[in-house]
Amino acid sequence: MKKVVTFGEVMLRLSTPGFARFVQSTSLNVNFGGGEANVSAALAYLGVPASHVTQFPDNDWGYAAAAAYRRYGVDTRDILFQGDRIGTYFLETGAMMRASRIIYDRTNSAFAQLDPAAFNWEEILADARWFHFTGISPAISEGAYLACKQAVATANRLGITVSADVNSRKNLWKWGREAADVMTELTEGCDIIVCGKGDAEELFGIVPVNNEPGFVSVCKQIQKRFPRVKKVINTKRGSVSATNNTLSGRIWNGERLFQTPVHEMFPMVDRIGGGDAFMAGFIYGQVNGFTDQKSIDFATAAGALKHSVEGDFNLVTVAEIETVMSGDGSGRLSR
Amino acid sequence: MKKVVTFGEVMLRLSTPGFARFVQSTSLNVNFGGGEANVSAALAYLGVPASHVTQFPDNDWGYAAAAAYRRYGVDTRDILFQGDRIGTYFLETGAMMRASRIIYDRTNSAFAQLDPAAFNWEEILADARWFHFTGISPAISEGAYLACKQAVATANRLGITVSADVNSRKNLWKWGREAADVMTELTEGCDIIVCGKGDAEELFGIVPVNNEPGFVSVCKQIQKRFPRVKKVINTKRGSVSATNNTLSGRIWNGERLFQTPVHEMFPMVDRIGGGDAFMAGFIYGQVNGFTDQKSIDFATAAGALKHSVEGDFNLVTVAEIETVMSGDGSGRLSR
Amino acid sequence: MKKVVTFGEVMLRLSTPGFARFVQSTSLNVNFGGGEANVSAALAYLGVPASHVTQFPDNDWGYAAAAAYRRYGVDTRDILFQGDRIGTYFLETGAMMRASRIIYDRTNSAFAQLDPAAFNWEEILADARWFHFTGISPAISEGAYLACKQAVATANRLGITVSADVNSRKNLWKWGREAADVMTELTEGCDIIVCGKGDAEELFGIVPVNNEPGFVSVCKQIQKRFPRVKKVINTKRGSVSATNNTLSGRIWNGERLFQTPVHEMFPMVDRIGGGDAFMAGFIYGQVNGFTDQKSIDFATAAGALKHSVEGDFNLVTVAEIETVMSGDGSGRLSR
Amino acid sequence: MKKVVTFGEVMLRLSTPGFARFVQSTSLNVNFGGGEANVSAALAYLGVPASHVTQFPDNDWGYAAAAAYRRYGVDTRDILFQGDRIGTYFLETGAMMRASRIIYDRTNSAFAQLDPAAFNWEEILADARWFHFTGISPAISEGAYLACKQAVATANRLGITVSADVNSRKNLWKWGREAADVMTELTEGCDIIVCGKGDAEELFGIVPVNNEPGFVSVCKQIQKRFPRVKKVINTKRGSVSATNNTLSGRIWNGERLFQTPVHEMFPMVDRIGGGDAFMAGFIYGQVNGFTDQKSIDFATAAGALKHSVEGDFNLVTVAEIETVMSGDGSGRLSR
Amino acid sequence: MKKVVTFGEVMLRLSTPGFARFVQSTSLNVNFGGGEANVSAALAYLGVPASHVTQFPDNDWGYAAAAAYRRYGVDTRDILFQGDRIGTYFLETGAMMRASRIIYDRTNSAFAQLDPAAFNWEEILADARWFHFTGISPAISEGAYLACKQAVATANRLGITVSADVNSRKNLWKWGREAADVMTELTEGCDIIVCGKGDAEELFGIVPVNNEPGFVSVCKQIQKRFPRVKKVINTKRGSVSATNNTLSGRIWNGERLFQTPVHEMFPMVDRIGGGDAFMAGFIYGQVNGFTDQKSIDFATAAGALKHSVEGDFNLVTVAEIETVMSGDGSGRLSR
Amino acid sequence: MKKVVTFGEVMLRLSTPGFARFVQSTSLNVNFGGGEANVSAALAYLGVPASHVTQFPDNDWGYAAAAAYRRYGVDTRDILFQGDRIGTYFLETGAMMRASRIIYDRTNSAFAQLDPAAFNWEEILADARWFHFTGISPAISEGAYLACKQAVATANRLGITVSADVNSRKNLWKWGREAADVMTELTEGCDIIVCGKGDAEELFGIVPVNNEPGFVSVCKQIQKRFPRVKKVINTKRGSVSATNNTLSGRIWNGERLFQTPVHEMFPMVDRIGGGDAFMAGFIYGQVNGFTDQKSIDFATAAGALKHSVEGDFNLVTVAEIETVMSGDGSGRLSR
Repeated sequence: MKKVVTFGEVMLRLSTPGFARFVQSTSLNVNFGGGEANVSAALAYLGVPASHVTQFPDNDWGYAAAAAYRRYGVDTRDILFQGDRIGTYFLETGAMMRASRIIYDRTNSAFAQLDPAAFNWEEILADARWFHFTGISPAISEGAYLACKQAVATANRLGITVSADVNSRKNLWKWGREAADVMTELTEGCDIIVCGKGDAEELFGIVPVNNEPGFVSVCKQIQKRFPRVKKVINTKRGSVSATNNTLSGRIWNGERLFQTPVHEMFPMVDRIGGGDAFMAGFIYGQVNGFTDQKSIDFATAAGALKHSVEGDFNLVTVAEIETVMSGDGSGRLSR
Repeated sequence: MKKVVTFGEVMLRLSTPGFARFVQSTSLNVNFGGGEANVSAALAYLGVPASHVTQFPDNDWGYAAAAAYRRYGVDTRDILFQGDRIGTYFLETGAMMRASRIIYDRTNSAFAQLDPAAFNWEEILADARWFHFTGISPAISEGAYLACKQAVATANRLGITVSADVNSRKNLWKWGREAADVMTELTEGCDIIVCGKGDAEELFGIVPVNNEPGFVSVCKQIQKRFPRVKKVINTKRGSVSATNNTLSGRIWNGERLFQTPVHEMFPMVDRIGGGDAFMAGFIYGQVNGFTDQKSIDFATAAGALKHSVEGDFNLVTVAEIETVMSGDGSGRLSR
Repeated sequence: MKKVVTFGEVMLRLSTPGFARFVQSTSLNVNFGGGEANVSAALAYLGVPASHVTQFPDNDWGYAAAAAYRRYGVDTRDILFQGDRIGTYFLETGAMMRASRIIYDRTNSAFAQLDPAAFNWEEILADARWFHFTGISPAISEGAYLACKQAVATANRLGITVSADVNSRKNLWKWGREAADVMTELTEGCDIIVCGKGDAEELFGIVPVNNEPGFVSVCKQIQKRFPRVKKVINTKRGSVSATNNTLSGRIWNGERLFQTPVHEMFPMVDRIGGGDAFMAGFIYGQVNGFTDQKSIDFATAAGALKHSVEGDFNLVTVAEIETVMSGDGSGRLSR
Repeated sequence: MKKVVTFGEVMLRLSTPGFARFVQSTSLNVNFGGGEANVSAALAYLGVPASHVTQFPDNDWGYAAAAAYRRYGVDTRDILFQGDRIGTYFLETGAMMRASRIIYDRTNSAFAQLDPAAFNWEEILADARWFHFTGISPAISEGAYLACKQAVATANRLGITVSADVNSRKNLWKWGREAADVMTELTEGCDIIVCGKGDAEELFGIVPVNNEPGFVSVCKQIQKRFPRVKKVINTKRGSVSATNNTLSGRIWNGERLFQTPVHEMFPMVDRIGGGDAFMAGFIYGQVNGFTDQKSIDFATAAGALKHSVEGDFNLVTVAEIETVMSGDGSGRLSR
Repeated sequence: MKKVVTFGEVMLRLSTPGFARFVQSTSLNVNFGGGEANVSAALAYLGVPASHVTQFPDNDWGYAAAAAYRRYGVDTRDILFQGDRIGTYFLETGAMMRASRIIYDRTNSAFAQLDPAAFNWEEILADARWFHFTGISPAISEGAYLACKQAVATANRLGITVSADVNSRKNLWKWGREAADVMTELTEGCDIIVCGKGDAEELFGIVPVNNEPGFVSVCKQIQKRFPRVKKVINTKRGSVSATNNTLSGRIWNGERLFQTPVHEMFPMVDRIGGGDAFMAGFIYGQVNGFTDQKSIDFATAAGALKHSVEGDFNLVTVAEIETVMSGDGSGRLSR
Repeated sequence: MKKVVTFGEVMLRLSTPGFARFVQSTSLNVNFGGGEANVSAALAYLGVPASHVTQFPDNDWGYAAAAAYRRYGVDTRDILFQGDRIGTYFLETGAMMRASRIIYDRTNSAFAQLDPAAFNWEEILADARWFHFTGISPAISEGAYLACKQAVATANRLGITVSADVNSRKNLWKWGREAADVMTELTEGCDIIVCGKGDAEELFGIVPVNNEPGFVSVCKQIQKRFPRVKKVINTKRGSVSATNNTLSGRIWNGERLFQTPVHEMFPMVDRIGGGDAFMAGFIYGQVNGFTDQKSIDFATAAGALKHSVEGDFNLVTVAEIETVMSGDGSGRLSR
């Protein structure tokens, strides 16, 4: 099977053990994560060939990060090693009404310093069937934006499916251009996007039209604006408490809206990575020829299951996802 | 007080810490467990003299296993030390809709290799009042089956109460004879059995008769088939999620059905050993002259409480069980 | 801002990790805690100058205890170092219907051995605006009682607000005088007390009068008996299970009863210290000029949040408390 | 084989992990230990029946302590459960020139509170061949002294060998009588003692006579003073650094001095319990008919090996001791 | 660069933490290791393409084992997943004169059950320059022997260098043929072997001739017997204590003997894998065109450094090996 | 006693547990450290009032860092909270010939971003007797240099002793001026400096004159160049292996050279902070009126002892230092 290629920053994730607060912590658990790379990790674990492209510093944290992805089957051959440091994010897990918190420390990361000319997208995508990125990458630096842009253009030229989680995070954009401006440009090359109502308003200025369900209305306008976009998908998260969430998914495929049941997730083992696992699940469905309904069901079950696994990666099997997708959330002991 | 004797395999239990998946684990917690030995451990902890009979390899894991039971008061004097290895089971604790999983690795264990002639049941049971085994032991090997058979025969001859958790696990039976065949033979020597509808159908071909509650119907047929069996007990487990279960118990004493309230168990600390704790609780009740209703209430409260304790053993006190049995599940801080 | 001064015993807290039972434990987590000192720790963390007064043994556990409070900003300059040992309490965290348990080992502690003459309250309280103690301190020893008495008298003379959590624990009183007798004497010097119906009956013989809501009735009688007491506050805890509690608060300010919503707390990370965090929250509100309604809301939200933090100290921020106080208990991820 | 009986206090041992200092520690490792009980643990692990007699509080720490000894085969049937608390000792492991440190917290322990009448020595010693105690027990309280005295007298009457590690620790004696006075009285009932030159001077006022090797001179005088004492044994410890010690042993059997080679111990895993392991090794040799030379060689090798094992117990095998005794300290990998 | 291919069993390695004994352990550290696979891991970490061939069970332990090697860059594409279980070895780390110990539990492993026809060596070795195996693999089962034989024959035919660590372990051979018989057959296909005097005598009946240094004499006879063997290499380990060893290396290249300095290794962090790291180091040298002296120096420095790294893999860099090779063992802090 | 004030960056120190390599690590231990702040921590622990001045980010890592120092008694009142991030250093502990390694990640730290105008040195030093900084601070940024310069000038004006560890680290200097240039300027304000031959050559171009012992020759030239400098001190470290070092100290007081014995340090628990502990020890000696010989002996013993303590801080007592200073490095157990 041809591979899926993802592009984006990977950070060293340092999380306090259990429910310890940052100020109490005497040790931090080491993981690695990045919104796009997590998609590759989940896909590789499900058996879909996946390759992640990024830039790491030429030091032990760079090697350790690559090793962490390679361990679960991600192809790391196109990762570059240069630049100053690995971006870091610190994670404190909440409990009850106390929220989980993230402190980002990603300035001047090797990824932010990347030279777009260093990536030969023709070669990287030669054996690919799908290219995925998120709105975070072009926000990091001009170089990262240009690399994204070239990757999308190359993928379009090669007839490779392009997906993006548009992921509006206004406070990340500091290198000169505006999120709305850049993301509009990049979305033009996308076939499938993850986009919620908030994203659509912030990035594209699209708001629901009266007398139509909000998400459908937004999707229709997106597709009018971006003719290449065939499908818009999204998740909806409910938050009962820091460790008690719900998740459901939906897809507008240009003609119809499909929705999934609501999954209850309590106690969540790890609050991070649900969206990435959802994306990977959706790609899994699409490359395996699932219907849109089945794809979104699979994706959402995958996204929910992710929160039962520590770390950024969705280390679950197809069988486990299918059990949940079938409506069985009982978690009955398997001997 | 005369002692309770149990017979069966004990395995090295290696479980991933917290909610870690097998593929993520960098360490495994060490415990020991076996369906019958766990009954002895729970009884000894409650103050009832209990002795476990088994065969361990003559190596450090054998000594460590014996030590683990002796620690909580189980008499280990009749344990033999020979054979190749200790059986092992790996446990991964689930969360949310992700199920807990067990990987068994028990082939060629010292227990499977036991020579039935090595156990002198006349001596072992000389000071006993109760003998307990499960349907797992005779499944392991012909030797284990023969040892079981001889123990039951000896106990019958000495007037010792015999109980069995018939525990149908078809995939375990590989040494030549069928589960149904052997378990029918052994059940003939039992006074009390743990048996659910599924077990009854698989092992004895007994299905409920129309127009009668299922469990009662099955029990009546069991007692017709096995005149020695005076009481049939059973638990019913509901699974809301991997860490959120419910438990209730029931007993048919030949005349009446007694049932217990449903205990809610969330978050379970350990998914294993509820049935063994239930059995120990029931024996505790019977040897202390409890009524059948009180026995099954005590047993079920004990079984529920077990899931709050890590490891295979039910390290709870009589007072704690009685509190739960009284309907107080509030877990109020005790200073 | 002038400081808050607290007085009372601090113990070495040794708790089993996770949900381990005492008999299983191979290690114990080290924390320090005391009902009054915890108030200082919480206040200091919220930015209110706070100083704790106590006596520690002149050994490493005494220094470590002082260091634990100083770490979070408590002024430790008035702590004395002499006497034999640090009092200890062992904590086992329950789960489901299995209760959390505390084993106290505080006999002959350095605090119990304190010489009341060693504390110069004029100096200690010179720069203070508030003095807080609990009914536990005078229970410990005659010396501790006398120190309390002198502190209260000095505070009254200096016009410093005095608060007490009257905290009836009959089994603690062994040095000669009765709880009711002594606490009546000390309450005469208090401006604000924490007192529930049970405390009121046990310590003051006060029971609700017919035809009036119980708490209000009790408060009115308290204020009649103790004219100095202006406000009576209290929390109400519901216990669904060992890790699933609810908390609400109320205040009678001499004229009106104010109550708070009920906070759901599941899963609690730490069962200890909710009352102390509540007290600190109330003092925070009062010294910052909050209304009584807002003070009790803030206090109760603080008390609830405490149970999400391991250890005795309420390491939460004003912003976190205000979020909960505003009715947002969703614990939504904060990036 | 008839059993060895030991009598003395067992304490909860709480040690900082690794080389952490007390003031840094966030957790403490849990073990149990006592000079006499450790002898029983080592003997039971070597296969010699051994029973320890003591008094524990009737709480979880008492049960846990008994369980810790029972785990390794010590007979705990004659342990009493009453009294207030378990004595505790805190251990900080040194490194390099920084010494290991112990903080004792044993006042008012259940053992100190024991009622000598509660022990029926006729029954306890009925099946015994050896009774062992140390000079620490009679130091603890008058009750402990009386229990010791009665045990020695009973053992003498029954013809049971009595050994004592006289172990002078002047600062422990606070209940009224002097160490020298009491230990002189108890030593009169001993057949074998562990006694160094320092002990002999402090307890018996015995100093070496000119022109004779010191230890021999002291032993001769001891035997003149205490005709029952047949053998005096002792170890000599050299301290290169906190984790680098040497150990040798010697015995005066009334006629000759036998000495052992010097064992180098680096890095010691645990600084505690070498003397107790030595004593157990010596008893093992004597009850197995070893010569005095072989007994002291075995004892000293056992004592040295102890320092490679964490905790108070000498969990080593006869084969391991014999390898070291044979002069092989290479620690070559055993597959 | 063409790759190095290794073939052999990989086991789950479960080691007690720190210096804990098996009977004390409450957790076990998880690693994976196998004599041949460790060579691939070390080579991949040094940047030499390496692929390991083996058979794992089709369960999570098989996936985890493959992931462990893939993490550090080993190509795992030719690993098969079928069979019952993963072989296990338990490791207890010694200290001082107490030896480290291994308990093997490898019977019926997936590797032992392999079908030699399942490996297509033409394909596997198509892109290889070197094939390495050890004497352990053919000892495991007839299937493993046949696979080895076919691999060697294919490598010979393709002109690929073949190396073997002959590694005599008599007690492993249980499937029918003798070690001497089989290893003689396989050594005929080898270009380079690791072989000490003991191995030579046990496997080939070769003993040193008088008047010649032992190792040289043995090597000369080996080369006479096995004309294909061009180089014989070996390490010499001295054991001062369980954690204090020395290591030196030597090579007979058919003409001359080259030896290395003696490396002192104290404290060893991990006793396992020195020989595998040595082998990997030697292959590294050979494929990089080092002289024999430099190759053996590099290999021995690599072997020594291995003992500073926990686990079976030699996670050290070329620069670190070169520093040691240059005679600098100071371990000076690198900022 | 008037306080000692230190100024410099504090970093989050993340170290791998035990001897784990960065690429293997699954958790990192959390400590905080900085060359100047460590001096304050050691002094405060020894009972000398000490205050550290720095700038931390206004986030949880800034608060945690301040808390870490306050815990051991350092006055943190003059610390500013603003700027982007806390500098980080990653530490991997070596073993045997494998060196310990540090990866610095301090670019754009809050300290580097400090505004020198934000520190009011008149106030900060009002109650001080000593000001200490190192050559690292002025290397970080122009702001840090200016703050240093103003602090030194203020201290000179107020008659406060100024000490500096000149600490040449050329690769740190990136903000515009040269190390030699700036350090020459700052050294003019110093009364006491730590300076070795390498530092003297790199920073001041001073090399030993023939026919004179190197250090003395250098010191004489330093004092000629910098008339204010009264004393030059230094340590000499020998490196046997990564965990086996030696340390000695020396002082030139303008008239004479005093040297200390060589301390052997094996096994070092922590490789970091010896120089800072030495500096603190020297200040302790000077402010307590020790002679120069005694000061340097105390300082060097303190520096050596530091390596027995995990973390950056020298948590040892005066008594412990004095024992080592007296020549007793035996580390004998202290009960």
